Amino acid sequence: MSKPNLYTVISPKLLDIYDINNSVVVIIDVFRATSTIATALYNGAERIVPVDNVQKCIEIGNQITNSITAGERDGKVIEGLQYGNSPAEYPRSFIQGKTLVLTTTNGTKLLHMALNNGAAQVITGSFPNLSAVCDFLATQNRNVFLGCSAWKDRVNLEDTLFAGAVISKIKQHFTIHCDTSLMAEQMYNLHKNDMYAFARLTTHWHRLSKFGLEKDLEYCVTNDVANVLPLYKDGNLIIG
Amino acid sequence: MSKPNLYTVISPKLLDIYDINNSVVVIIDVFRATSTIATALYNGAERIVPVDNVQKCIEIGNQITNSITAGERDGKVIEGLQYGNSPAEYPRSFIQGKTLVLTTTNGTKLLHMALNNGAAQVITGSFPNLSAVCDFLATQNRNVFLGCSAWKDRVNLEDTLFAGAVISKIKQHFTIHCDTSLMAEQMYNLHKNDMYAFARLTTHWHRLSKFGLEKDLEYCVTNDVANVLPLYKDGNLIIG
Repeated sequence: MSKPNLYTVISPKLLDIYDINNSVVVIIDVFRATSTIATALYNGAERIVPVDNVQKCIEIGNQITNSITAGERDGKVIEGLQYGNSPAEYPRSFIQGKTLVLTTTNGTKLLHMALNNGAAQVITGSFPNLSAVCDFLATQNRNVFLGCSAWKDRVNLEDTLFAGAVISKIKQHFTIHCDTSLMAEQMYNLHKNDMYAFARLTTHWHRLSKFGLEKDLEYCVTNDVANVLPLYKDGNLIIG
Repeated sequence: MSKPNLYTVISPKLLDIYDINNSVVVIIDVFRATSTIATALYNGAERIVPVDNVQKCIEIGNQITNSITAGERDGKVIEGLQYGNSPAEYPRSFIQGKTLVLTTTNGTKLLHMALNNGAAQVITGSFPNLSAVCDFLATQNRNVFLGCSAWKDRVNLEDTLFAGAVISKIKQHFTIHCDTSLMAEQMYNLHKNDMYAFARLTTHWHRLSKFGLEKDLEYCVTNDVANVLPLYKDGNLIIG
């Protein structure tokens, strides 16, 4: 039996050049949406509702009991919402049993693109749940698309590095004819032992570190500290 | 005075997220259009007319005396045209004084996008004319966009590596806040001493080497063997 294919999609704008029908799409938004999603679920959130705008976030938040609304733009909590986009805001003592209604720009947009284009399964990936993502992908026998959320469609390195981390762990299960994947894997291998230092060179780190988020960003490039699988089902991300 | 900015655009689909007004755009199509363009001009072609389809190629070829028409799809000369897209087809003994009317898919599309979006100057770059490109860019005092032609919008490694080669040589002249540029430069530094071997791992090499083009491809990753600057002016690429 031939192996399924794996591709890395380095910006949401490139997703529609691929046929993602019946595939698994991994939404990657390392700084910080998908790291926060893994963390909140790991710490006992009942579910996460990803929405693409602030108004919808508030409306859905009002409809669900025991929910909180969250979202950031430029490192600050959005007016009208209650919390931000930092994994540090969601310890077990706070988030357990709650529904997190989360609005993000880049990640949510990509998630809806994946669903609209026929993906069979959509999961979210980040360094804090690297192993859970790899274990899942290796056993699905479906084509896989590692979807980097990027920043306003501009390529970012941290999402690409996460794709590389996945590839380096599970490539033996896939056929990979994809230069982006080759590049992502080599960049990851080059920097897996200096990730904290290297991540400081990325544009997104520069953007966010101004807001005192350095500790947050270090957490977001740490492997397996919130090792669950966020799986999209009926409008929610739940533990798969 | 602040330095101009430099960005790497890893696929034509990402060009329109940048403001390229008044900038220099470098069209990069290493395998093999821009390598062939540099070579033909270096060997004395009077000019190159880049066109985006076969019909136009034939029509323009008929209008210009001492011209030849050229273009390939999948490693073969297109029916109705006279020559292919290999730099080896254009030695001085053949091309000197002639006009080359060349149709390519990826490179020509990107060139027209750059012109339509307000680029002040459009040049073409490839390893055979690496130094000429760098010398030009370093002295223009304009923002620079290194535009990878990719393959049907899919990222390819050889164009990205060329962007990295340019960056490694002239980065001191620019402000660079661009993760793609950081990645391109690191990939280039990782492989500049094993370029022939590494290029064999790219998807495009696989695609083209089936047609016996290995020698061609090796030439296309060799620095400065056709070191002229192809500059777009009034519909033609001429030596700038």
